[in-house]
Amino acid sequence: MTQPRFDVLAIGNAIVDVIADSTDAFLAEQGLDKGSMRLIDQAEAVRLYGAMGPGREVSGGSAGNTAAGLAALGAKAAFVGQVADDELGAIYRHDITAAGVDFLVDPRSDVGATARSLILVTPDAQRTMNTFLGAAQMLDARDIDPAAIADAAILYLEGYLWDPDVPRAAMVKAIDAARAAGRKVAFTLSDTFCVDRHRDGFWKLLDDGRIDILFANEAEALAMAGTDDIEAAKARLAAAVPLLVVTKSERGASAIAGSERADVPAEPIERLVDTTGAGDLFAAGFLAGQARGLGLEASLKLGAIAAAEVIQHYGARPEKDLKALAGDLLA
Amino acid sequence: MTQPRFDVLAIGNAIVDVIADSTDAFLAEQGLDKGSMRLIDQAEAVRLYGAMGPGREVSGGSAGNTAAGLAALGAKAAFVGQVADDELGAIYRHDITAAGVDFLVDPRSDVGATARSLILVTPDAQRTMNTFLGAAQMLDARDIDPAAIADAAILYLEGYLWDPDVPRAAMVKAIDAARAAGRKVAFTLSDTFCVDRHRDGFWKLLDDGRIDILFANEAEALAMAGTDDIEAAKARLAAAVPLLVVTKSERGASAIAGSERADVPAEPIERLVDTTGAGDLFAAGFLAGQARGLGLEASLKLGAIAAAEVIQHYGARPEKDLKALAGDLLA
Repeated sequence: MTQPRFDVLAIGNAIVDVIADSTDAFLAEQGLDKGSMRLIDQAEAVRLYGAMGPGREVSGGSAGNTAAGLAALGAKAAFVGQVADDELGAIYRHDITAAGVDFLVDPRSDVGATARSLILVTPDAQRTMNTFLGAAQMLDARDIDPAAIADAAILYLEGYLWDPDVPRAAMVKAIDAARAAGRKVAFTLSDTFCVDRHRDGFWKLLDDGRIDILFANEAEALAMAGTDDIEAAKARLAAAVPLLVVTKSERGASAIAGSERADVPAEPIERLVDTTGAGDLFAAGFLAGQARGLGLEASLKLGAIAAAEVIQHYGARPEKDLKALAGDLLA
Repeated sequence: MTQPRFDVLAIGNAIVDVIADSTDAFLAEQGLDKGSMRLIDQAEAVRLYGAMGPGREVSGGSAGNTAAGLAALGAKAAFVGQVADDELGAIYRHDITAAGVDFLVDPRSDVGATARSLILVTPDAQRTMNTFLGAAQMLDARDIDPAAIADAAILYLEGYLWDPDVPRAAMVKAIDAARAAGRKVAFTLSDTFCVDRHRDGFWKLLDDGRIDILFANEAEALAMAGTDDIEAAKARLAAAVPLLVVTKSERGASAIAGSERADVPAEPIERLVDTTGAGDLFAAGFLAGQARGLGLEASLKLGAIAAAEVIQHYGARPEKDLKALAGDLLA
């Protein structure tokens, strides 16, 4: 196999985040589940935007954040996600390209508006996401180039992309292409509600041996395994995938690969501002470590470093020099 | 005179800030003067955007920031500035309205694109602004409602608005309306380059007795007075305006009203992130104090508190509860 052009090719919803400070009272008033992601239509996006506070617009999207984090760590990353031919689409394209990621999809004028997620950040730094998928749900299987997939050591997919029908087909095609080329497939469960919506589909992916690396936080692992015993959940998932990574917020993260297991604590932080992107950047750090051939523990540590940076500011993409923060790990 | 509906009606360029981290080397490569604001055309905006790093989009514009700060301090503020009927225009309108400011101008579809300022923030937290005025320079005198001006205790104007011809006429009409209604007129010199471009016009405003409160930083005061002696500059300006406010960055600020003079130190900060909006929020705090009938020193102190908050994060509008930070001053 020739040396692939990309360390990671990520596919996900191309979303601009609209981040506003909020209160618990506002979430209650709007009937929102703190910490979750819900899908909304355009009318609800307009209504909620009108009710929420002033926003900061920053490019986001789970797998896009991971791709930006990978590039910040010196890995070669590509991203596939659909934007419209509008101002937010131009912002999305600029930001991910300027982050050093190869953006492989052209904007389209026949897909409605570029996706946006209205993110309400409460004083406890939790984020509650209200996502209007717009153009992102029009990512077509035709936009998946098997040659590009074959040219990436790892294909990385977000569970969120399983929600809309059209990109689900694109993901399946991408997995086929990666398997045919002998590349690895990494997948994140994304969100407990997402797991609830697609548990059977996700299990089929695992049972069919189509996933090599699975990312989940503890709540998602429990939801997926249908148990409230975290050790049982991890054991069940670890038996279904060659490499399982479970993040545990302020308690760090674990990786299980067959009989091998590694654990790291969370990195210390000065101040918690906005947890948006914590899981995305953890995945970026871990995959950057894997791309460099590092072991489980060093890869987890890179994940913890990248996650710690992103939760200390608004927005889900790195602002500080992640390579410098990684220090000897990437030396 | 009846109690006016607004404490302050601000008129300025309605601009969305696109904020990116930068380096001194990038500024040098682009031939940019650190800390200044330059006007650019659409082609240059596209070119520079393509060369700069990932951005954060946050509503800005000098007088708009001041209006948002006033509302955050509990003052009744209105804003007049032209946006286009596009996505950035909708963002601008949302943000200033959600900040509690009455936005008095309708978007237009015949004015090109909403203004944006490409702001490069260097590691020393200085900001270098590259502003494409777009729709903002189409603010028409017809959009100035004399009744609204008459219904505000203070009319606040930014010097930047003197650059394009069309809004300059709107400003003159607004000053006429304020004077006719017996309201006060406050004016900020905005930027040394702006002073260089319009020194004669600004002096004529002062000499004709059309300005009641003048805001300047030390560099702008020197540029306006055409001297390198700051005391001489302040004396010359103070003789031309009933109330002069001079900001001195980390050395605080001074106010001179005839024979009365007050000085305050800068408020302590934890970390300097982005100086964008420091002057705008200083003006907001000072005017909020004046609107409450506070003295010079208390008004200066409010200015220092509001400025200190805004320089500790990206973006030029307050994120923390300014009323809480003001404490007893607004009790």
